Order: sequence, then C-alpha cells, then structure tokens
Amino acid sequence: MTTSPDLRGLKFNTDGLIAAIVQGAPDTPEAGRVLMLAWMDRTALERTLATGQMHYWSRSRAKLWLKGETSGHVQDVVAWHRDCDGDALLFHVRQRGGAACHTGHTSCFFQRLERDGSPAVVEEKRVFDPAQVYQTAAAANSPRAQEVPQQP
Amino acid sequence: MTTSPDLRGLKFNTDGLIAAIVQGAPDTPEAGRVLMLAWMDRTALERTLATGQMHYWSRSRAKLWLKGETSGHVQDVVAWHRDCDGDALLFHVRQRGGAACHTGHTSCFFQRLERDGSPAVVEEKRVFDPAQVYQTAAAANSPRAQEVPQQP
Repeated sequence: MTTSPDLRGLKFNTDGLIAAIVQGAPDTPEAGRVLMLAWMDRTALERTLATGQMHYWSRSRAKLWLKGETSGHVQDVVAWHRDCDGDALLFHVRQRGGAACHTGHTSCFFQRLERDGSPAVVEEKRVFDPAQVYQTAAAANSPRAQEVPQQP
Repeated sequence: MTTSPDLRGLKFNTDGLIAAIVQGAPDTPEAGRVLMLAWMDRTALERTLATGQMHYWSRSRAKLWLKGETSGHVQDVVAWHRDCDGDALLFHVRQRGGAACHTGHTSCFFQRLERDGSPAVVEEKRVFDPAQVYQTAAAANSPRAQEVPQQP
C-alpha cells in the first residue's frame, strides 16, 4: 500500500508546518511524559505514517529529520491525534533509548522554572551522556562525523 | 511584589509568540492528559505568572485571552517548564470544570486518527455541553453575548 494518508483535516501554517507534541505512550517507561515539541511538514508527516517512526522538519537545519538517525533513539508511533481546530498534533510514542532530548534527559522539558522565571534545580538524572552517544555514532558512521545533535 | 519575571531564557518567535503545551497536573482528575496547545506573547505569560491562571494570545482574535473567561473553566498553574532550546513551554495545570476544549471534551486532542489519516470513533464522552455552557455564560454576562467560544 503506497496510498497517501488523508491529511485534509489538518492545517499547516504559512511555512507549511504543523506542531507535533510528542508524549510517552501508555505502557512504556515514559508513559505520560511530554517528551518534546517539534514541527512537521507534509513530507515528514507522510514519512512518519509510512514508516511508523517519527520524522520532523528541522527548522534550524531546514531539512527532513528522522528522530534518532544519529543516536539510534528513534520514536515508534503508537497513536496520533489532531486537535479541535486541526492545527496541532499529539503523538504517543515508544521512545527507544529512554530519552528524547539531545542533552540526554528523558524529556526536552526537564527544566522546571520558578514563578519568577528562574530555573529550578534539575533533580532528574540524564539517561545518557550526549558526548558519548553522539561521538560513538559519529565514529561508527564517518560521513556524519561533523553532524551536530538535533534540536527541535 | 510586582517585579517582572525573568524571561531571558525564552525565545519568542518572529510574531512575538511562544508555544505552550498544557497538561493536567499530577493529582488532578486530568493528570497526564495533554489538554491543549496554545500560544503566549510576553504579556500573556507575565499575566499567567502574576495571576496563577493561564492566559494566552488568541491568534484568531488577535487579543489577550484568559482561558475560561467565558466558560469559567479556568486553568490554575501548578508548575511550568521550558524546553532545551527555550522556544516551547510546558505547563502543568489544574483544569476547572474538567474540560479544556471548547467542544466540551476534556482535551482538545480528543480526535484520534488512523494511520491513513481518517478519524477514529471518539469513545470518550463530552464533559459538558458547549451550547449550554456558552449560552449560560452569555446570558449571565450580556456584554459577552456575542462572544464565540475560544479556540487555541
């Protein structure tokens, strides 16, 4: 089956993008955790649905991005939803490697803020050491040796 | 205390906005549910922190919006976080009235989609009847009688 998914109910913005909230799926170690917010263009969304692995549009690098392509920490789609006005998506995923954030934290939202805006102490430990993960990936795959870790 | 919060770690986009994911706080009936995605300008964020109730920038109406101003279903801030690159926020809230969505559903993301993009059957019931809630609010507050329910 190579038929395109029906995306008519979705509203991409003037840059051709739609926001995707990524949450740990039920019955995974990260269940309920909001892992990250990223952006998808139509191609990224179609690739995500075709492969079952999260793809995004990297605004900083202006290219399609398979989450985990460097680290191996891909996100398998468990379910997806649109919001009431069709301009935001919510994905439930199984996060391989236990962490979504390029810093090594489970969630990109690891930094709680105080009411005055100052950063709270981060008590949760990193799941991985980003220097090690990205160095190992670079060594194993020399064409990507200069690749920087991805941010949403 | 009327000092402004320190927002220097945050990146507002070229429209002066930052994305805010809103999630039910632990120990509330909506714990863990992603309720909505909305946008804040600097003023909306400052009002949110000053009052402890979620304020947004309504892009459709181009104005500051106290969530729940019509329905009474305000959102009390429990905690807030920024993401690793400072361009998205995650709020944990206590949702009064049990539903964040103007349709009467707990979450704006009530519509699950199939892999082919078609909408799945919505099994979760509405928490309230929007016609009743917004009519009652309009009747109780005649200057707002023409106000339409808010969407993110």
